[in-house]
Amino acid sequence: MCLTVIYMLHNLLENIKVVLASASPRRLELIKMMGVTPLVVPSLAPEQDNGKTPRLKALQNAQSKATSVAQNMDEDCLVVGADTLVVLDNMVLGKPKDNQQAAEYLRMLSGKDHLVYTGLCAIHHQRIYKTWEKSNVRFAPLSDDEIQSYLLTNEHIDKAGAYGIQGYGAQFISNIRGCYFNVMGFPIHKFYRLCLQILA
Amino acid sequence: MCLTVIYMLHNLLENIKVVLASASPRRLELIKMMGVTPLVVPSLAPEQDNGKTPRLKALQNAQSKATSVAQNMDEDCLVVGADTLVVLDNMVLGKPKDNQQAAEYLRMLSGKDHLVYTGLCAIHHQRIYKTWEKSNVRFAPLSDDEIQSYLLTNEHIDKAGAYGIQGYGAQFISNIRGCYFNVMGFPIHKFYRLCLQILA
Repeated sequence: MCLTVIYMLHNLLENIKVVLASASPRRLELIKMMGVTPLVVPSLAPEQDNGKTPRLKALQNAQSKATSVAQNMDEDCLVVGADTLVVLDNMVLGKPKDNQQAAEYLRMLSGKDHLVYTGLCAIHHQRIYKTWEKSNVRFAPLSDDEIQSYLLTNEHIDKAGAYGIQGYGAQFISNIRGCYFNVMGFPIHKFYRLCLQILA
Repeated sequence: MCLTVIYMLHNLLENIKVVLASASPRRLELIKMMGVTPLVVPSLAPEQDNGKTPRLKALQNAQSKATSVAQNMDEDCLVVGADTLVVLDNMVLGKPKDNQQAAEYLRMLSGKDHLVYTGLCAIHHQRIYKTWEKSNVRFAPLSDDEIQSYLLTNEHIDKAGAYGIQGYGAQFISNIRGCYFNVMGFPIHKFYRLCLQILA
């Protein structure tokens, strides 16, 4: 059969089993927003922190996640791994370990720009494809009272950098430069480009 | 009673009847994302197109919407009107009248930057408060096949500029500069600043 429609993700991936090697509900939401319903198989691969640049670290973690899941899947699946890093002044801010660290992170982010990197890795028929994205996010200046109000929402708990842009945190973000969906953890345009490269 | 928590929208607006003078499901979704559930009363005020700049036009339409709804509400309500304009090379692109015009708009947007303006107007105790936001959106270059694939999703039908950034259209957007939520029709950070000005 000759496919005539080979553009946009819901067409490109219509007859492909897509496997999302991530437990992130935000990544799943964004892929579904594109009309694609993946199988979710979170990777158990440990995250690396090996002193590389944020870009290389995000790419390597994305590849570890995709690889660890792909080895248990049929090779005609498209397995997608992703890793997102929040970086302020060359320091990676992970998920806060408690409210005190979350408050520290938010005080550091307040009134400043930071960077969000996502590495993406797709594996299809044993071939590995990678891409990445970088966005700049500007936080409005936050008072200690605003930070305390935010922590009461509990939104920070499972978020790198202690904030969620798709939630209460949105009101603190005055500006972004780059891909918004990357800040949510899944750079949709770059994923589309990657799928065109693999499948079109 | 003395309120101790006066930050963030869900606290600021906790004891206020918020009325959204807009039929946009995206604006409603964004306000609800902030923990605020408004009464939705779409305005019947006609949109103006009076040759002013996009910023003034968006502000004036936002005010018309808020005013027309506020006159039927208690004055202790906070009535919110908004108007969003998509502007390419000084030309306002409204909702496309048919698929042919939608295709024209998308061909014009392809590979270029455009601007999205939103005017916001809030009325509370008969006082009028206004703010606005501007974002720059970059479309990836689109082929005619991509445009035709997009039109088949029907997402363009009720969207200014013939695209939705929160949907299939996301895969065509390579970059934004400014407030993402403004591109969705409701600049959350600016609305938060406005509410602080009115209520804090």
